[in-house]
Amino acid sequence: MGKSRLEAFSDGVIAIIITIMVLELKVPEGHSLAALLPLTPVLLSYVLSFGYVGIYWNNHHHMLLISHKVSGAALWANLHLLFWLSLFPFTTAWMGENHVAAAPTAVYGAVLLMAAVAYWVLQQALVAADGSDSALRRAIGSDWKGKLSPALYLAGIALTFWQPWAAQLVYALTALLWLIPDRRIESVVQE
Amino acid sequence: MGKSRLEAFSDGVIAIIITIMVLELKVPEGHSLAALLPLTPVLLSYVLSFGYVGIYWNNHHHMLLISHKVSGAALWANLHLLFWLSLFPFTTAWMGENHVAAAPTAVYGAVLLMAAVAYWVLQQALVAADGSDSALRRAIGSDWKGKLSPALYLAGIALTFWQPWAAQLVYALTALLWLIPDRRIESVVQE
Amino acid sequence: MGKSRLEAFSDGVIAIIITIMVLELKVPEGHSLAALLPLTPVLLSYVLSFGYVGIYWNNHHHMLLISHKVSGAALWANLHLLFWLSLFPFTTAWMGENHVAAAPTAVYGAVLLMAAVAYWVLQQALVAADGSDSALRRAIGSDWKGKLSPALYLAGIALTFWQPWAAQLVYALTALLWLIPDRRIESVVQE
Amino acid sequence: MGKSRLEAFSDGVIAIIITIMVLELKVPEGHSLAALLPLTPVLLSYVLSFGYVGIYWNNHHHMLLISHKVSGAALWANLHLLFWLSLFPFTTAWMGENHVAAAPTAVYGAVLLMAAVAYWVLQQALVAADGSDSALRRAIGSDWKGKLSPALYLAGIALTFWQPWAAQLVYALTALLWLIPDRRIESVVQE
Repeated sequence: MGKSRLEAFSDGVIAIIITIMVLELKVPEGHSLAALLPLTPVLLSYVLSFGYVGIYWNNHHHMLLISHKVSGAALWANLHLLFWLSLFPFTTAWMGENHVAAAPTAVYGAVLLMAAVAYWVLQQALVAADGSDSALRRAIGSDWKGKLSPALYLAGIALTFWQPWAAQLVYALTALLWLIPDRRIESVVQE
Repeated sequence: MGKSRLEAFSDGVIAIIITIMVLELKVPEGHSLAALLPLTPVLLSYVLSFGYVGIYWNNHHHMLLISHKVSGAALWANLHLLFWLSLFPFTTAWMGENHVAAAPTAVYGAVLLMAAVAYWVLQQALVAADGSDSALRRAIGSDWKGKLSPALYLAGIALTFWQPWAAQLVYALTALLWLIPDRRIESVVQE
Repeated sequence: MGKSRLEAFSDGVIAIIITIMVLELKVPEGHSLAALLPLTPVLLSYVLSFGYVGIYWNNHHHMLLISHKVSGAALWANLHLLFWLSLFPFTTAWMGENHVAAAPTAVYGAVLLMAAVAYWVLQQALVAADGSDSALRRAIGSDWKGKLSPALYLAGIALTFWQPWAAQLVYALTALLWLIPDRRIESVVQE
Repeated sequence: MGKSRLEAFSDGVIAIIITIMVLELKVPEGHSLAALLPLTPVLLSYVLSFGYVGIYWNNHHHMLLISHKVSGAALWANLHLLFWLSLFPFTTAWMGENHVAAAPTAVYGAVLLMAAVAYWVLQQALVAADGSDSALRRAIGSDWKGKLSPALYLAGIALTFWQPWAAQLVYALTALLWLIPDRRIESVVQE
């Protein structure tokens, strides 16, 4: 019931999240190229978060493509995921404006972690709604990326006490992990 | 006529409302965890309003799922509902920034009340459009939540003269009331 | 070709326009009800513009419902309409913050006028795309509202030199004119 | 797989980009017509960028209309295009507020260039997904506009070192080039 509207609403919210993050790229005072330089950390944070939100949209899209039923629990699990994603513009801006600071980098990682947990909860709700014959369950398989990512975010948060830039490296590598194509869902679709 | 576009437009407006509320979470000056502390009331207000807007989206989604016709009156009733929902970011921000103040909490409740009234009006318009055989009418049943909520919002508004935090408790409990799954519509769909 | 995506894109843009106008309702400094009073003209401007954008969405929705083909010219005419609608948040804010001033009221009316012209151009493009058998042409009929409105906006603009509030009255009455249900399109749909 | 959701998400992001650009039209201090004059370069930049985003939406719409399959690579290529489009509000605002300055005009052109490259990459991904029988490949044909535009943007960037307004003329003319109707895709659709 209502898969298309769940997708439409999620698309709307994710599209807005990904776009309002760019509002943090405040227009600089001067009009020389040098005036853009102080924006570099903000731009890099934006690129990282744009990548993450893009990955979430992409995965969300694939996950719903092979789900058949959307239960009431899944609707709430989806809103819960959107809540954590909606905090990305805030944590991105705070991290971008204080780019080597430990606390903003740790909070950024904590929101990444909560979004990953919320995604996992949504995935479970969708698998449960489809029952024993869930194509999504087969497609997920061992879900090693889904299990590894929270551990990496936790590692990143811990690293901020030592070197915040090491945490950022971990966050970026985790994103790259998801950019590598994953044939599981596509092969289930082709069945 | 035009149910899908009514849904699409409402999804768009609700998605934007839920997302621009987060813009009130202004990036703090400092870069320590302590700098986040003053944001707590703003964050809590955001969580409450995110919950309310999510509930409205969810209920709107279910209501339209079992409606068959959308009359001209329903289009206007829907815009009327969206108008009151569009004031949520303003009242949320005002309440968040002055969190124990009476007036912002009362105005927040007044907008909750008007949104509940507007939702009821839309529901009546949809029932009327579907005529005597309305599945929506059967699904609504006694509509005790829909009748109790405005009374609770009024009680909350009255409580602000005594203790604003009591009003906020009432608002939060009313939201929880709606989070409890409601099998009526799902059982009508399965018929 | 592509009617659904034209609708989806227009819905998106109109939904955002209607929602970002509310960002002009800046959170007041104080936390008493009296602090809300200076916002009254801004709120009234918002209500007027919300009504206008709602009317445009509603009419756009009906117009496309009975159009069959969307030509390349109609795509551009639609973007042209969205351009003028996108200026509503600006003119609404300027008028709201200077509510009895003549120039903002005149500019507000000029944007209303241009949007009405753009809507008429889009309507012509859709009628032309459907050819001699256009259901839209029959539904439009004499189009007296469409012809009267630009004249009323011009009258409103002229009135700003005398009494800006008289212009605002004209704008509000013109909006009410459109709120009165119009059975033409609904009767064509039922044929 | 999933063409409709790719369209919905892209429509959402593009609709938001086109609309938040107007937020740069800041409400002026005064309430005379003269107070609008300093906004002229910002308004002209907005018109140019509104045109460009509209062209991208229009072309994106046509391109997907005649594509049959959407591969994983195309999903990422689409996000890549949306990333560059999302920088338009920033470059538009910077150029508008410093309108005859060389650096903002060059950066504006660089983002136009990157968006054109990203569009070309997406087009290649869609052609590849559809295989040897791609209707899109036939519709694209020699793609002289797609090949000429990056050269014109490069020329515009180079011209900023001499006369920034010459660059703006080149950008505007390139936009006009795309506004001229292109019958290729429409004729392929009619086959």
